[in-house]
Amino acid sequence: MRQSQLFTKTRRDAPKDEVTRNAELLIRAGFVHKEMAGVYSYLPLGLKVLTKIENIVREEMNKIGGQEIRMATLHPSEPWKQTGAWDSVDVLFKIQSRTEKEYALGQSEEEIVTPIAREYVQSYKDLPVAIYQIAQKYRDELRAKSGIMRGREFGMKDMYSFHASEEDFARYYHIVKEAYLNIYRRCGLNARATEASGGAFSKKISYEFMVLTNTGEDSVVYCNACDYCVNSEVAKEKAGDACPACGKGDLKSAKAVEAGNVFDLGQRYPKVFHFTYKAEDGSDNYPYMGCYGIGTTRLLGTIVETNYDDKGIIWPESVAPFKIHLILLGGPGDEVTAEAERLYKGLSNRGVEVLYDDREGKSAGEKFQDADLIGLPLRAVISKDTVQKGKVEIKKRASKSAELISPEDFLNIFHD
Amino acid sequence: MRQSQLFTKTRRDAPKDEVTRNAELLIRAGFVHKEMAGVYSYLPLGLKVLTKIENIVREEMNKIGGQEIRMATLHPSEPWKQTGAWDSVDVLFKIQSRTEKEYALGQSEEEIVTPIAREYVQSYKDLPVAIYQIAQKYRDELRAKSGIMRGREFGMKDMYSFHASEEDFARYYHIVKEAYLNIYRRCGLNARATEASGGAFSKKISYEFMVLTNTGEDSVVYCNACDYCVNSEVAKEKAGDACPACGKGDLKSAKAVEAGNVFDLGQRYPKVFHFTYKAEDGSDNYPYMGCYGIGTTRLLGTIVETNYDDKGIIWPESVAPFKIHLILLGGPGDEVTAEAERLYKGLSNRGVEVLYDDREGKSAGEKFQDADLIGLPLRAVISKDTVQKGKVEIKKRASKSAELISPEDFLNIFHD
Repeated sequence: MRQSQLFTKTRRDAPKDEVTRNAELLIRAGFVHKEMAGVYSYLPLGLKVLTKIENIVREEMNKIGGQEIRMATLHPSEPWKQTGAWDSVDVLFKIQSRTEKEYALGQSEEEIVTPIAREYVQSYKDLPVAIYQIAQKYRDELRAKSGIMRGREFGMKDMYSFHASEEDFARYYHIVKEAYLNIYRRCGLNARATEASGGAFSKKISYEFMVLTNTGEDSVVYCNACDYCVNSEVAKEKAGDACPACGKGDLKSAKAVEAGNVFDLGQRYPKVFHFTYKAEDGSDNYPYMGCYGIGTTRLLGTIVETNYDDKGIIWPESVAPFKIHLILLGGPGDEVTAEAERLYKGLSNRGVEVLYDDREGKSAGEKFQDADLIGLPLRAVISKDTVQKGKVEIKKRASKSAELISPEDFLNIFHD
Repeated sequence: MRQSQLFTKTRRDAPKDEVTRNAELLIRAGFVHKEMAGVYSYLPLGLKVLTKIENIVREEMNKIGGQEIRMATLHPSEPWKQTGAWDSVDVLFKIQSRTEKEYALGQSEEEIVTPIAREYVQSYKDLPVAIYQIAQKYRDELRAKSGIMRGREFGMKDMYSFHASEEDFARYYHIVKEAYLNIYRRCGLNARATEASGGAFSKKISYEFMVLTNTGEDSVVYCNACDYCVNSEVAKEKAGDACPACGKGDLKSAKAVEAGNVFDLGQRYPKVFHFTYKAEDGSDNYPYMGCYGIGTTRLLGTIVETNYDDKGIIWPESVAPFKIHLILLGGPGDEVTAEAERLYKGLSNRGVEVLYDDREGKSAGEKFQDADLIGLPLRAVISKDTVQKGKVEIKKRASKSAELISPEDFLNIFHD
C-alpha cells in the first residue's frame, strides 16, 4: 500500500490519559482510535494486525475440529435469567428496549451456545462437538484499565465443547492446550499454562495461559526445564528452588499477562437448559461442557507490551500489518523514485505485503521516525546513494545495523 | 468437510413463527438459529455464506480505494447528543452503565467516523478519503419482520467518504454505484439503482439499490433497454409506457427488495464536529460527506428469497457454502465408500470446497432431500451403480437432469 493513500498519520505526542505502553504506542502509530475509556476503534493498520491474529486463532481452532459460528451479541434476557447470571454477573450490560423487553449484551456465550447445541445433539454419536466464534464482547467494567487489554468492548475467541464424559473433556482440554500454545508461539509470545482458581460459576479447577513479559500485571514461578508454571500468589516454592514437577530444573520468576483461560463447566449449563443426549445404553445424560477463551484484542496489546523499544513497536513477522516498509528518499520524476516504484510493483506482484512510503515533503528523519514507530519487521531505503551503488539498504527493525543488497535479492527476500 | 462432522442437521418442520421463506429455509437447512424476533446466530453453513458475501463486498470496496477499519459498536453518548440523534433516532438502543454513564449501540457510525476522520484530515491533500467497516449493527425496532432481512441485530457494510467539494462527492458516488452493482451481480442478483426520498437527516436526494425479485416488499417500474428505474410509489409512468429516460425501451414493473442505499450528507456532520480542512487557497472549509450502506445479512436473505424452489435453497456458486455436495450411497468398507473417499480427498487436494455426505444410517432419499434443502450448486452421487459403470453421477441443483461423467473429469470439474 502507498503510505500517501493511508488515511492515518503518526502522532508525536502521547495521549495524556493513556498510561499503558500498548495504547500509547498504538494510538501514536495510528493503529487504534480511542472512543472512550476501555473502547477503541481499529484503524487500517490495527485491523490488519487484528485480522492476522484472528486468522492464526481460526486456523488453530479449525485444526482441532472447532466449528466456527457467529452468535448474536444482543441476547434475550430469558436464558440469562434461567442461569441466574442476569442478577449475579455484575459486568453484564442490560438494555431496556422501547418494547419493554430486556436484552443483555454478550460477555460470554454459554447462555446462547448451550441451546444451540441442544438443538442438534441428540445422541452420543453427536458428541464430542466443539463450537467457537470470534466476536465482540462487552463488559460493564467499573474502571477500564490496561489500554486495549481490558476493555468495555473487546474482541474474543470463545469456544465451547460438549462431551459424553468428564474424561473426554479432559482429553480434549489437552488438545486445546497445545493449540493455544501454538497460537502464542505463532504470535511470537512465550506462554505457559498454569492452574488457576475457578471462575464465576465453576468450583472446579480451571487453567490460565500466562505470557511472560516484563510488564505483566501478574507474576509466575516457572521451571526452566519442564512446563511447570504457577501463579506466584499460590506457589509454594520460590525462584531458585528445585522444580517440584520434574525435579531437574530450577524455578525462575517472571511477570506475566493472562492471555487465555479454560473453564471446566461440568454439567451446569446442560442441566439448566434441559439438554440431554441418548447414551449408548439408552439412558438420557447431560453432556459435560468446557469453555476456552482467548482475547484477540488483548493478544494484540500483549504483543505490543512484549515487543517495543524507545522508538516504537517491533512487530513479529507473523502479525505485522506489512512485511516491509519501503522508504523512498527521492523527488518526483527522479531516478530514485523510478527505482522505488519498480521495486514496489515487483514486491506487490510477488504478493509481498509492502507499505511504500511515497509521501512527498517528508524528510528522511521523519520517514525513519515513522518507520520505527509503526514497527514493520524490515525497513528498505531507496535513496540517491543506494541507486548510485545499484543496491537497496535493508535493516531489520529489531537490529541496529543496515546492509546493502542487490535489488534482485531484495525482490526475492521473502521467497528464500 | 465431512457431513458426519458437521454439528448442524436439517429439520423437516418449518418453525411456526417464521412466515418468511428466507428464515424458514435457512433454519430448516441449519444455516441460522433464531435467538429471538429479529436476532439470529449464524451456524457453520450460514457463516460460510456470510463470509463469502463479506469478502465480495470487501473486494469491491478495496478496489475503489475504501480503507477498512473496525469501529466500536459500544458508543459514548456524547457525539450522539452533539448531533441530536440521541433524542431524534427512535431505533437507537441506549444503555445505562453501572457507572451512571450512558452508551449507545451503533446503528450507523457517522457519530464515530467523523471524529476519526477529523483526527487525520488536515489539508485538501488528504481528501478525498473513503473509510468503511463490515460489522454488526443494532436497531431497537418496534417489530422485527422479514426474517433475517430486517432485524434488531444485523450485519452491514457501511462506508463514509469525505470530499473537498460536492462535485467530488458526485464523482465518487458514481464509482460506488458501479461497485455496488458489481456486488449484486457477483451475488447472482439483478439490481437497479433508483432515486429515493431522503433519510432521517438528509433533505437531499438519496439513492436506493433495488433487487428485482418475486417476493419483494417494494415495487419498481424499470426500463428494459436502459438503467432507468423508479419506485412505483413515485413513478409518473406505468408498465407498458415508453421509457422517459432513453425513449427506446418499454417500462416494466417488478417487485423488489431494497438492498443498499446512498446518502448525500453534505457538510452536516463535519459542521457538528468542527471538522475543517485547509483548502488550496488557505481557507478553512468543511468537507462534504457521503454514506453508503449495504446490509450483508440482508443480502444473504435476499439471495435466498430469489433462489429457491419447493425443495429448498439454490445457492449461486459465488456464495455457496461449498461448491459440491458429494453423496456416498455405500456402506463401511465397501468399494463404493473407497471410491467416494478417493474422490473426496482428490477434490480437497485440488482446493475444491466439498461437503461430503459420509453419514451412515441415512437412506438415499434422506440424503437427496437434505442436499436439495441445503442447495449446493452441484450434487455428485457415488453409488454401487455408478462405481460399476466407472462413472460419477452429477446434477446441478437448478437442473432436473443428471448425467454420468468419468471420475477424472469430475475431479477437474472446477478446473476447466
